[in-house]
Amino acid sequence: MTIRAYGAHAGNKPLEAMQITRRVPGAHDVQIDIAYCGVCHSDLHTVRAEWAGTLYPCVPGHEIVGRVSAVGAHVSGFRIGDLVGIGCIVDSCQHCEDCGAGLENYCDHMIGTYNSPTPDAPGHTLGGYSQRIVAHERYVLSIRHPEAQLAAVAPLLCAGITTYSPLRHWNAGPGKKIGVVGIGGLGHMGIKLAHAMGAHVVAFTTSESKREAAKVLGADEVVVSRDADAMAAHHKRFDLILNTVAMPHGLDAFLALLKRDGILALVGAPASPHPAPNVFNLITKRRSIAGSMIGGIPETQEMLDFCAARGIVADIELIRADQVNDAYERMLKGDVKYRFVIDNATLSPS
Amino acid sequence: MTIRAYGAHAGNKPLEAMQITRRVPGAHDVQIDIAYCGVCHSDLHTVRAEWAGTLYPCVPGHEIVGRVSAVGAHVSGFRIGDLVGIGCIVDSCQHCEDCGAGLENYCDHMIGTYNSPTPDAPGHTLGGYSQRIVAHERYVLSIRHPEAQLAAVAPLLCAGITTYSPLRHWNAGPGKKIGVVGIGGLGHMGIKLAHAMGAHVVAFTTSESKREAAKVLGADEVVVSRDADAMAAHHKRFDLILNTVAMPHGLDAFLALLKRDGILALVGAPASPHPAPNVFNLITKRRSIAGSMIGGIPETQEMLDFCAARGIVADIELIRADQVNDAYERMLKGDVKYRFVIDNATLSPS
Repeated sequence: MTIRAYGAHAGNKPLEAMQITRRVPGAHDVQIDIAYCGVCHSDLHTVRAEWAGTLYPCVPGHEIVGRVSAVGAHVSGFRIGDLVGIGCIVDSCQHCEDCGAGLENYCDHMIGTYNSPTPDAPGHTLGGYSQRIVAHERYVLSIRHPEAQLAAVAPLLCAGITTYSPLRHWNAGPGKKIGVVGIGGLGHMGIKLAHAMGAHVVAFTTSESKREAAKVLGADEVVVSRDADAMAAHHKRFDLILNTVAMPHGLDAFLALLKRDGILALVGAPASPHPAPNVFNLITKRRSIAGSMIGGIPETQEMLDFCAARGIVADIELIRADQVNDAYERMLKGDVKYRFVIDNATLSPS
Repeated sequence: MTIRAYGAHAGNKPLEAMQITRRVPGAHDVQIDIAYCGVCHSDLHTVRAEWAGTLYPCVPGHEIVGRVSAVGAHVSGFRIGDLVGIGCIVDSCQHCEDCGAGLENYCDHMIGTYNSPTPDAPGHTLGGYSQRIVAHERYVLSIRHPEAQLAAVAPLLCAGITTYSPLRHWNAGPGKKIGVVGIGGLGHMGIKLAHAMGAHVVAFTTSESKREAAKVLGADEVVVSRDADAMAAHHKRFDLILNTVAMPHGLDAFLALLKRDGILALVGAPASPHPAPNVFNLITKRRSIAGSMIGGIPETQEMLDFCAARGIVADIELIRADQVNDAYERMLKGDVKYRFVIDNATLSPS
């Protein structure tokens, strides 16, 4: 079937309206009429070919929410009309150790929701800046939030799980002191989730102007990272610091804030490496610099249910599809609180 | 009491014979007549002021073995004549979380065996290139190896525990694939210990000539790290890679060899940082770069007992005290298999 989408034909061209096709749902497939799609920084990196390997036409978007509009004959978990989501993953090998552990996000053959190989036209996956998507039911998530929150649920599918997974993996919870570096799309979710897990949350920002906003999000304390005295007061105090900043920046100042066995978990992926960290900052307290990428399907469902039970959603600004190029420019300036979400109804002709 | 030692009066001067004083043993102190002292790369870094903060006169040495020659009135764990060792630590605060966990090596107030503040003359600690040392019994280790192996036990006190601790902490053992990078003082112990723990051990070296020697040490496989094809064959296979190389070098080639959740543990401390690692290599498999520094007193005793039970010692070249300057030069060229150990009897006038 042919549907409307918004994407780019080359890395140096803006996104524009286009038509794409979706496969007819197979026996295990769920077809979703997309209501909203969040705008992730990865979308911009990919569309503009800032990371290697972008395939065109490129239709980004992996924070997808909507309603089931058709199901295959063997689909057991979903029915027409269900509120559902699709995150960053639409397929994986299902026979490796990672898939077996429910960590399809680390599968060597993970198929991303956009820009990954597929037998479907045009040979690579096309994402959620579109009217519909079809995926195997294994990668479809149930949404138990009220429908009125649906647009604000969309960013949970990437920004939510990308912060939830490392917080859970490295045991954020009561009695733990957790830092969150950067108060953007990922960081604002990191603060909300770490707070909801019961941790003592310290938000780090370069901007004094974000102090009050970070507290509203759930931060117990806010530290302006350029303030050396404020940083020194937190020396060797943190169990985990979740670093959401993708721009290259020095890590040593944050490593020094970790306790013995503390972990600096990076979830942002800079196009060029961060400056080299000082090895003494690692060995003197058995600290680690770790990375974490999205999360597996079971834990994405767990995260959605955790958020639904607590009324947690993203803070969003709803936009029309034809505003996405402007939204990218504003995102680059940090001018969004905290996530743009496309109203996919605006893909239809007015 | 005044004793003979070998040390340096400045960073740009060679080590030479000198006289130093030791305190009279206090109630909880053990006085040790030093038989042998290993030569660690840290000794060289410190003596030559390559790290910040060297105090002179500097008498290095923290791989100390010998016999108890006096004990204080309240010493309960040692008697005159016991074979004992002193490693890198001679004091710590004993009331912090790290000391409470038996990890005095991570105590903020850990007192190193040399170059740390002390009330004793000359105001900083002096190490094992000397005839005697006096320390609180809490930091004295029992040696259960046969006396004939004593010289080769000395390097266990630093090179041994520095590799044993991260291997244990990150669960080296049967069913685990463990890499050891560098086949020097630390690396040769890492291979022996990981092998003794039952892991599958792969040694990485830049030199084809070390292949057979690494197998003799206990490596199941040896990979020349300059051989891209050999490296590729181990892609995503390792649970843990223990990196003992202190010269700055790229870490990405080793990160790529780690499985999901794999750890690259650094135990070498380069004077300048390694080139910045690629964050994608961390996030795509939730890998970590960690540091580890020596080990705590309880685990140092555990390591010594583990080695005594299995007949594990270091491979050493015994030298006279007056050969130590030459030994440093040879160590810088990697011309030692695998640890120089000073025969402290050579400190006495001939």
